[in-house]
Formats: sequence, structure tokens, C-alpha cells
Amino acid sequence: MELTAVTFFDLVRDDLNLVEAQLRTTIPAEPEAVSVAVARLINAGGKRLRPVLALLAGRLFECDLDRSVCVAAAVETLHTATLVHDDLVDGSLLRRGIRTLNSQWSPSVTVLTGDYLFARAAAFAARTDSIAVVREFSDSLQVIIQGEINQMFAGRGQASRQAYFKRIYAKTAVLFALSAHTPALLSCASERVGEALRTFGREVGIAFQIMDDILDFTGDEAKLGKPVGSDLRQGLFTLPSLCYMESNPDDADMAAVINGSRNARTLARLTQAIRQSSAISKARQEAEAYVARAHAALALAPDSAQRRALAEMADYVIRREQ
Amino acid sequence: MELTAVTFFDLVRDDLNLVEAQLRTTIPAEPEAVSVAVARLINAGGKRLRPVLALLAGRLFECDLDRSVCVAAAVETLHTATLVHDDLVDGSLLRRGIRTLNSQWSPSVTVLTGDYLFARAAAFAARTDSIAVVREFSDSLQVIIQGEINQMFAGRGQASRQAYFKRIYAKTAVLFALSAHTPALLSCASERVGEALRTFGREVGIAFQIMDDILDFTGDEAKLGKPVGSDLRQGLFTLPSLCYMESNPDDADMAAVINGSRNARTLARLTQAIRQSSAISKARQEAEAYVARAHAALALAPDSAQRRALAEMADYVIRREQ
Repeated sequence: MELTAVTFFDLVRDDLNLVEAQLRTTIPAEPEAVSVAVARLINAGGKRLRPVLALLAGRLFECDLDRSVCVAAAVETLHTATLVHDDLVDGSLLRRGIRTLNSQWSPSVTVLTGDYLFARAAAFAARTDSIAVVREFSDSLQVIIQGEINQMFAGRGQASRQAYFKRIYAKTAVLFALSAHTPALLSCASERVGEALRTFGREVGIAFQIMDDILDFTGDEAKLGKPVGSDLRQGLFTLPSLCYMESNPDDADMAAVINGSRNARTLARLTQAIRQSSAISKARQEAEAYVARAHAALALAPDSAQRRALAEMADYVIRREQ
Repeated sequence: MELTAVTFFDLVRDDLNLVEAQLRTTIPAEPEAVSVAVARLINAGGKRLRPVLALLAGRLFECDLDRSVCVAAAVETLHTATLVHDDLVDGSLLRRGIRTLNSQWSPSVTVLTGDYLFARAAAFAARTDSIAVVREFSDSLQVIIQGEINQMFAGRGQASRQAYFKRIYAKTAVLFALSAHTPALLSCASERVGEALRTFGREVGIAFQIMDDILDFTGDEAKLGKPVGSDLRQGLFTLPSLCYMESNPDDADMAAVINGSRNARTLARLTQAIRQSSAISKARQEAEAYVARAHAALALAPDSAQRRALAEMADYVIRREQ
């Protein structure tokens, strides 16, 4: 895992082991098929950025460790649950380099496995013993699902910045914001600093998702664990596409894709054009601007090793290659 | 709605209107298609037994009305969410006399609409301001989903009483138990009386489900709002089948169905045989025994109009014809 090479991770390595132990408790004893599927999902893991964010915020606010471990386990389990249903909805076949549940199972098993993980996430959230934290989890889940529903019903070719930023807030930033903010609710942090951390999480989340969308054009399939160019193929216009469109308003391939063309050659040509254009560096600059805003928000928190680690994390999300 | 004719309903008629108003807030403003679908789900309504149970228990325990309305709205929304996914999993086409979401929509929309309702249920539960209530909701959701998963993976022909009662506890009784018990957590009720109400809810829930399973053989399709005999067709052995099996251990049709036959003629003959046999009255006697246990548990609560209404409700669940 790439994260082991970055230092912001060091401060909460032991805490994260506690989270991993909690995540393993979500593996049901039976039926074996579901047990294996959930174990594989948990072990595939991903970068664990959301739990690390929650743990660092927990340490920053001197939050009771058991409770920040619960927040971290809840946020990761909720994230996994939404991915299980999301992959089913999108018909995705690969995630984190392993086959998705829906590529191997009936929709029924996939639906129920996702539901099971929702229930476990709710149980972790309740174990924080804070109704404010639970409320933030349920509000965030609502934003996430409403975002997925909107995405599904949005007409094809919804190529606007407004739609894009609304979508990535719901898809990614809301859960980063929750991870950074809820530990404040479990501590004596002032509301002002708590809200600053929420802003930090949100801006880092937006930057993270922009980077994800850039990597969908520029990344290495082996590292990404999924095929490149998948967003455009699904008719999804992410920031690199939008930047390209702004600089090339008369591009015929882009017009065709906006009008619903899914012709493989058109898509390949357009993907290649975007990849080689200045749209990539423009999108990256926007991600950097979000990271700068994250740093500004973080400055409200008192200086500490945890604050420095969070700052490093913010820089990491746009430096990463997977 | 048949319930308007029974008196236990009267005591909480106004409270239930508040719940209905809360349920209507779950209708999303957009996209229109989902808005229409959720509105139809809520208006189809069903008998609202779970919210009525929560409201009566709330009145019994002199619970703050706003909070028992939240419990009632949460339990009904959670119930509806699980039905949406359940109908998708089972491929059911009709529920409460209207077409199921999955019969009209893609699995994707159905999955996300169910998820959306889970999020709304969690929000209602959090609005009780009680972490103990939230915990009970998340525990119950886990039991429900685990029950559905077990049912899906159980080998066909799982014709045992143990499997049946475990299944209907997860499917129905756990939510009745939660409805009756959580209002106690929001009041100064003693743990002893609270637990008695949980037992009351559980026993009523089991009786309710046995009755549902009897009506699947004896009911009127128009009143039920779904086709008769659907359990056996799905290879599901409910109490009437189990009672029939015990009295007719050598029945060839039953043996064939247990061994996986879904031959239409065999199923029709077996359904008719069970319907005309003493299995129906035996199953009904068992439901009556659960209602008797519910009454015994209820006796621990102080006598009041609410307690009498709850007693009536217990009798109603085995008297109903739909």
C-alpha cells in the first residue's frame, strides 16, 4: 500500500490497526459466500484515507480513542457499503483491482451485502455514543444517495461545472468532511475549530476527487485497478473534460459525446486528446487551489504534530498516482 | 383501510396524522420519477401497525410526543426501505395491491430508492435524540438483513420449524419488538416493564407473520393485493406447510416440492390440499398461543386505556383478513 511510504500515516498507524480489527468484525460468520465476499472487500482495503483522516482529527482534538476508532470504522464501512451499491448501479466490473461483487454475484446478493454493511456502519456510528455524530452520518448518507440518484436521472451530456462540483461533493467530499468534523463533536473543541476541520475535510475531498478524475485520463490501469477513460465512456463529464471543452468549444468529438455518442473510436480519440491537452494541468491547478483552501482552514487549529500530518495528507491527495 | 374500523386505532389517530406528515417529508423534491415513486410507496401505506404500536407504547409510557412520532416514522420508513429491496431480491411484482418499484424500474433505481429510505429512517431515529434508540434500530436492521441473506442462501426445501421461526423473527417480529420497546427508552419506564413491552411486540409480530402466512393460503387475492400461494411457489415453507407436513409425512406432492419441484400442477394441488386441511387451524392455534403470551407480557404494564388498546391490537392481528 502506497500510504505506508508517507509520513502522515505514521502518527495513527497503531490506531488504524484497531480500526482494521473493527472492520474485520463486520465479516459475518455465515453464509460462507457472503463471509468470503465481505472479507475480500475489507482486505482489498483501498487507501483508508477517510479513517486516517478521522483518526488524525481525533488525535488533534484529543478525542477518546475508542470513539474515534468507531468514527473511523463507521466512515469506512459506510463508504464500502455505498461502493457495493454504486458498482451495481454503474455495472462496474473492477474496483481496487479486484472484481466487484456485482460482477460475480446476482444483484440480489449484492444489494443485501450492501445493506448489511449499511447496518454495520450504523452500529459503529451509534457506538460513538453521540447523537450528533449519528445525525451527521445519516445526513451525509442522504446527501450521498441523493447525489447518486441525481446522477442517474441527469440527462446525458450534463456537462456543467455546477453539476460536476455538486456531484463530487456528494460522491466524495461529504464523507471527508464528516471524517474530519465528527471527532470535534466528541471532544471539547470549539465550534469554530470544528467547522474549520469540516471545511478542511471538504476541500481535501474535492481535491481528492478531482485527482481521481484526472487519473481516470492519465493513470496506469494496473495501479488504478480499473480501466482508464471509464468516466467518458459512461457519459460522465469530469473536470478534465470540462476544462478541455472550455478551451476547445468547437471540438467535434466532444460535441458528439455530449450528444450521446458512445462510439468507441470517438471516445478513444477524445480521451487521448484530453490526456495530451492543457486540460490536465488546468484541472490539477484547480485541485491545488482546493488544497490551498484546506491549508487555510487548517490554520485555525492549534499547531501540533497532528496538524502537520493533516497538512501533509492534503498535499498527498494531489501528489498520488493511484 | 380496515384499521379505521377497529377501536385500538382511535387512541392515536391524531398522533398517526403527525407520523403521516413526517412520512410525506421523505418524498424527495427531485428527480420527479423518484418523487412519484416514493409518494406512491408512502400513500399505498399498508396497515401502519408498526407506527401505531410505537405510538400506543409512547402514550403508555408518557413519552414526549415528538419523540414517539420520530420512532414511529423511523420504524415505518425502515420497514418500507427493507420492502423495496426485498421485493427486488424476490422479484415480487405486486405489494399492497400496487406494482412494486422493481416491476417498473431498473434494479439500479430500486436499489437507490431503498438506500434513500434507509438514510431517511436513520435521520428519524437520530431525531429521537437517544443513542439507545439509534442502537436498537441499527441492531434490528442487522437482524433483518442477516435474515434475508440467510433466506437467500438457505438450500431449497429448508422445511423446519427452527428455520421458520428464526426467519419470521428477523422478517417481522424484530421490528414489532423495537416499535413496542424503544418508546420505553424515551421515558422513565422501568427496564422490567420496557422488556415486557419488547416481549409483547415480539409475540404480536410472530403472530402477525403466522397470520400473514396463513392468509397466503386462505386469503382473497383482491384484499391481499398480491397473488395467493406465493410462498410455496418460491420454495418457502411457512407454518401451514410445516403443520401439513407433520400430519402428512408421506405426501408425495410435498416431497416433490421439498426436493425442488416447481411444477405448477403439483404446487396448485398441494396449495389446495393445505388450504383444506387441518394445518390451517393448527397454525392459527399457534398464532393464538403467541397472542396469549403477548397478553401475559402486557399484564406487567399498569392498566390504562393504552394497555387495553394494545391488548386489542394483539387480538386484531389474528382476526384480520388482509
